[in-house]
Amino acid sequence: MYNVNQTHDPDRQSWVESANADDTDFPIQNLPFCVIEQGSDRSIGVGIGDQVLNIKLAAGVGMLSDDLVEAVVQPSMNAIMGMTLKQREKLRREIGDLLDKNTKANRAELEAALVPMALAKYRVPCTIRDYSDFYASVYHATNVGSMFRPDNPLLPNWKHIPIGYHGRASSIVVSGHEVRRPAGQKAPTNDGMIPNVSPSKLLDYELEVGFYVGRGNQLGKTISIENAEDHLFGMTLVNDWSARDLQKWEYQPLGPFLGKSFATTVSPWVVTMEALAPFRCAEFERPEGDPVPLDYLASSENSRNGGVDLNLEVHISTMQMRELGMATEKLSGTSFRNMYWTIAQMLTHHASNGCNLQTGDLMASGTVSGPERSERGCLLELTWNGDANNPLPGTQRSLLTMPTGEERKFLGDEDEVSLFGYCVNEKYRRIGFGECTGIIKPAAE
Amino acid sequence: MYNVNQTHDPDRQSWVESANADDTDFPIQNLPFCVIEQGSDRSIGVGIGDQVLNIKLAAGVGMLSDDLVEAVVQPSMNAIMGMTLKQREKLRREIGDLLDKNTKANRAELEAALVPMALAKYRVPCTIRDYSDFYASVYHATNVGSMFRPDNPLLPNWKHIPIGYHGRASSIVVSGHEVRRPAGQKAPTNDGMIPNVSPSKLLDYELEVGFYVGRGNQLGKTISIENAEDHLFGMTLVNDWSARDLQKWEYQPLGPFLGKSFATTVSPWVVTMEALAPFRCAEFERPEGDPVPLDYLASSENSRNGGVDLNLEVHISTMQMRELGMATEKLSGTSFRNMYWTIAQMLTHHASNGCNLQTGDLMASGTVSGPERSERGCLLELTWNGDANNPLPGTQRSLLTMPTGEERKFLGDEDEVSLFGYCVNEKYRRIGFGECTGIIKPAAE
Repeated sequence: MYNVNQTHDPDRQSWVESANADDTDFPIQNLPFCVIEQGSDRSIGVGIGDQVLNIKLAAGVGMLSDDLVEAVVQPSMNAIMGMTLKQREKLRREIGDLLDKNTKANRAELEAALVPMALAKYRVPCTIRDYSDFYASVYHATNVGSMFRPDNPLLPNWKHIPIGYHGRASSIVVSGHEVRRPAGQKAPTNDGMIPNVSPSKLLDYELEVGFYVGRGNQLGKTISIENAEDHLFGMTLVNDWSARDLQKWEYQPLGPFLGKSFATTVSPWVVTMEALAPFRCAEFERPEGDPVPLDYLASSENSRNGGVDLNLEVHISTMQMRELGMATEKLSGTSFRNMYWTIAQMLTHHASNGCNLQTGDLMASGTVSGPERSERGCLLELTWNGDANNPLPGTQRSLLTMPTGEERKFLGDEDEVSLFGYCVNEKYRRIGFGECTGIIKPAAE
Repeated sequence: MYNVNQTHDPDRQSWVESANADDTDFPIQNLPFCVIEQGSDRSIGVGIGDQVLNIKLAAGVGMLSDDLVEAVVQPSMNAIMGMTLKQREKLRREIGDLLDKNTKANRAELEAALVPMALAKYRVPCTIRDYSDFYASVYHATNVGSMFRPDNPLLPNWKHIPIGYHGRASSIVVSGHEVRRPAGQKAPTNDGMIPNVSPSKLLDYELEVGFYVGRGNQLGKTISIENAEDHLFGMTLVNDWSARDLQKWEYQPLGPFLGKSFATTVSPWVVTMEALAPFRCAEFERPEGDPVPLDYLASSENSRNGGVDLNLEVHISTMQMRELGMATEKLSGTSFRNMYWTIAQMLTHHASNGCNLQTGDLMASGTVSGPERSERGCLLELTWNGDANNPLPGTQRSLLTMPTGEERKFLGDEDEVSLFGYCVNEKYRRIGFGECTGIIKPAAE
């Protein structure tokens, strides 16, 4: 679908020097999009090294082709997302040429359109009309299932359907936004069997990968697995914060609701499918005995580049750690290649009943966990719900210990959680996703 | 909250003669809003008798106060929905004065702004950012639960929480829009335990009442039960089409997804909370032994006017019936006063975790069923899933028989389902909701 081409040439360099560093997330081979706010003005930006290029300003001085300008000067990314693949490629090529070391454009004008990332104020990158969340990691689903349904961790549908549910779009916030600890009903523990209403005690993060819909489909029409990736614009990091105690009491029979809808954090950067081409990999190898994907979810195309070899990490920092100037603590790390269902399968399934996907819709993968304990994408799994009979390796405890000695079963107030994502291999430049961060604020009075 | 005032005076008449008929849904005491399309132009309209008053045109010739104009000339209803209660009341008063028999406005100009309802082309009335669906009828929840969990029809949370879930906003269509029968996975019935992928055989309607959010709340803030109705704009009819076979296989553990997201039909008319004031009633009387609502869902205010005495009906017409010129067949009828949870409780619960509700958000009640078999709001309940051991009264069959002799367990292709809603009492004029209709089209090839 997306071919590796000259825009991925690892030797290509930018006149923005920081983009040429080996460890940058944002070399000229990446060119992810974001939306930045300056005063009351919103512009689409492109990440390059430690800078953001305001492409509205660049377009304003005639640096992009006329047919690209209208989409580029919008205050949100939807018009770019809705472009044809050809237009998208053209935009990527032109932006790459502007930022190339040997650019023919006016450097002074380009420099005037740069904003240092450290000073940029990001916004949610597009109007997200609908947000859907999947449950596509077999490790995550099995772990969570084992805790709550030990006899039957994976339900009979799981290996046939990319299980998903509708999420709340209004409470999606961009990285850096505070997350207020929610209050709500919890299962009764008292004699009178009356639920307790109080702030969540079991507040968790979920390490997820999101993907934005490019061009949508009409209501009543489906999207074949072969064409699925034509409808994808790019990928992002998602923290699907979860109040486990609220969720546990409310979720039967219609699924998670208030345990999720208080906040979902997305990273500012949308890494395009084009940029990710060198890091596509075979889809997950299903264990012997697992059902093969049903026809509508299977394709030979898909088996070549269904996966994405995207490394993921979760870090935490408590207030005490920050006061002591300590670095963040890595909680886990895994790869998105461990997902049982591909993003194409999730998208095709979503539209298989004729549901219309719209440009800018966000889908998320569900918690990404790998096979090892160190690869688990949420605290519920890492601490096994604090179960002392399931201690962390090398310890007799299931609670996580911070460098300060503080312990965590779930998140405390002022804890800051940061997700990171990056693709690396020997042949191409690192393609990073930046950071997706949020800090827990105490429940409202 | 909403007081009965001079705008409800039953003796008030309109110069639009059809609005003075006893049986009209749209007397001058109602004044529901809609959005109509004329060419490529969308305008907000007000229903009066058998006519729609284009209030953009009326505003254009200076018939409304200056401070109302900006909201009124928009192509969708969101700006009106986001008005303060005071502004809303002012707009209602001014529109009422324009349509009053003794109006001081220019009749010729007003008449030029009328469109016959029979010719109007309606659109979804506002931009619906998020759609949430509840499950608030104890009769419906008990019936459905009895079929699938005979030992445990109502789960332990049900009487404490207004159970709800996030729905799909993109596939909401307005009354009259065709509904394509969805295809999808169904539970395996074969030896190999492989799900069958094919068009839904168990396609159902759900009779629901929707309510639109007026002014929203900030993320992280809650809405008290006392203030809940200040955040409601008005009510509407909703048909939450359901593919029971798809839903049954997919819904564990995260809830309904593709069994619902292929289409949801809303009626064109939004009946304001102001218009409904004379039909507010006490909330549902909970049976002895049921838990009282938790503090955050309980208020004395609420107990006075928490309910709405809104009569609801479902009608069906098959293609054969239409070809023979037969009238529609009434399938069931009930009242919204039978709901266990009030709309205020649903809204307050929804925001109780700090989830931000936004102007134009749609919430629906879930299927409205009453205590009698004739009051069941979906085919699943009416035919008891076609269970021959549970025949319809006076018959030995559980299938519904049409006047043509055709039988229905679930919906057939070309079946047209229409929902109706109306408030009546001895003292005030009938306040109608119009019709919410949809016709089933065969699955895509």
